[in-house]
Amino acid sequence: MPDTIQSRENERIKHACALRDSAARRRAEGLFFAEGLRLCTDLAQSLCPVEVYYTQRFLQAHPEAAQLPGRHAFVSEAVAEKLSDTRSPQGLFCIFPRRAQTFSDLGRGGRYLCMEHVQDPANVGALLRSAAAFGFDGAVLCGACADPFAPKAARASMGALARMALIFADETKQAIDAFHLYGITVIAAALEHSAPLEAADTAFPGGVAVLVGNEGNGLAPQTVASADMAVRIPMANGVESLNAAVAGSVLLWHFRGVQQ
Amino acid sequence: MPDTIQSRENERIKHACALRDSAARRRAEGLFFAEGLRLCTDLAQSLCPVEVYYTQRFLQAHPEAAQLPGRHAFVSEAVAEKLSDTRSPQGLFCIFPRRAQTFSDLGRGGRYLCMEHVQDPANVGALLRSAAAFGFDGAVLCGACADPFAPKAARASMGALARMALIFADETKQAIDAFHLYGITVIAAALEHSAPLEAADTAFPGGVAVLVGNEGNGLAPQTVASADMAVRIPMANGVESLNAAVAGSVLLWHFRGVQQ
Repeated sequence: MPDTIQSRENERIKHACALRDSAARRRAEGLFFAEGLRLCTDLAQSLCPVEVYYTQRFLQAHPEAAQLPGRHAFVSEAVAEKLSDTRSPQGLFCIFPRRAQTFSDLGRGGRYLCMEHVQDPANVGALLRSAAAFGFDGAVLCGACADPFAPKAARASMGALARMALIFADETKQAIDAFHLYGITVIAAALEHSAPLEAADTAFPGGVAVLVGNEGNGLAPQTVASADMAVRIPMANGVESLNAAVAGSVLLWHFRGVQQ
Repeated sequence: MPDTIQSRENERIKHACALRDSAARRRAEGLFFAEGLRLCTDLAQSLCPVEVYYTQRFLQAHPEAAQLPGRHAFVSEAVAEKLSDTRSPQGLFCIFPRRAQTFSDLGRGGRYLCMEHVQDPANVGALLRSAAAFGFDGAVLCGACADPFAPKAARASMGALARMALIFADETKQAIDAFHLYGITVIAAALEHSAPLEAADTAFPGGVAVLVGNEGNGLAPQTVASADMAVRIPMANGVESLNAAVAGSVLLWHFRGVQQ
């Protein structure tokens, strides 16, 4: 029978909250916090949780949670409330290890999403979810992107965090140079000086990287200039833009790697 | 020089807040509330505001707001705070008329988005934005959809509310019957017993209606059964679903009516 943590000041609980709230702590410790049955079981298909916390009530409703690997502890309802990032906590919380990936994990012939300064965690999460669904092998997050391991992004990604390689770069140029080194074609999303999406090839035997930019400003001009090709999504008269997750996902759909 | 409203209890301000908060009031009065420069000026390209409220500070920063049609009034910062649905109000608020549209506004050869029980206002707004961008002529909202005129949906729609016909139906069957009456082909999104999206025609000279369902449950089985065709977005192994706004938008993109 696992221990029960009753105190909101317990050191393990404070540690879990720190991982939930701080990108720096997540990075330094190589761990992240996840909440809820669907997300945690989805992540646990590829990653082994190191800590598993649940309420008595949660375990009664979902006895299968007892099968998760890692160190288990019960938490009181008051502690669950402290741990939760949502209004109505289900009562399951896990700490998972982050994989540490680098550009040497890129593969020839692979498909990659590359984000530059995508700042809304919900957009980062939704784009990772689309990339995983459309058969992409990994994602590179450049510059000031929201942390994909933050709770809001992790929830929106629906387990894609565990399914794909994730690589971080300070400058987009590092990512473009790495793609080129591996013979991967780099395609930038840009409203101007770009080809309409339907005119772009869909088969890239050497691999393809799709670059999407900041919600308000798009990609930096030097990023677009360094890409092999720029594409835009044609829009009806008077419409200036799409939701950022939608626009990026339509590009990922065009360059998808899934079969019927 | 317009009046200045200083009191948070002013009847016009209470009326604006009621339109902001109540779908029933919006429906009964045929009006809706919008906030912020980008959304209000975008809507004002097609709809004439009946009331325009701004702070002195806002008008100094954006003197062009004085050119908006409708009855103008200054509001104090305290009143702007009461009116605002956001954390940092810009200081511009308008009340617009809703167009009242019915199935008789459908056109042969048109393109329509049809939503069934799409409950998140951000999804409703993002789908309308995509539909407008991809050259759709209108949208039908069936059953328990979030109100597209609610502030969160209106913000996410980015002016699409004013660009497209919007029709409301209690039952999806009414919409499908109306589409068929006009010779419009009805296509349902469904994970099972459906063709992969890339196998679906893109040219429908008689018109096309794309049906998307609830975020968690999809379309009702009887809705799918009444459609002329069902399509699914093929996904990679292990991925069960996409963000609802993304999935619907990929379908809208496939059936788009925009030229390069």
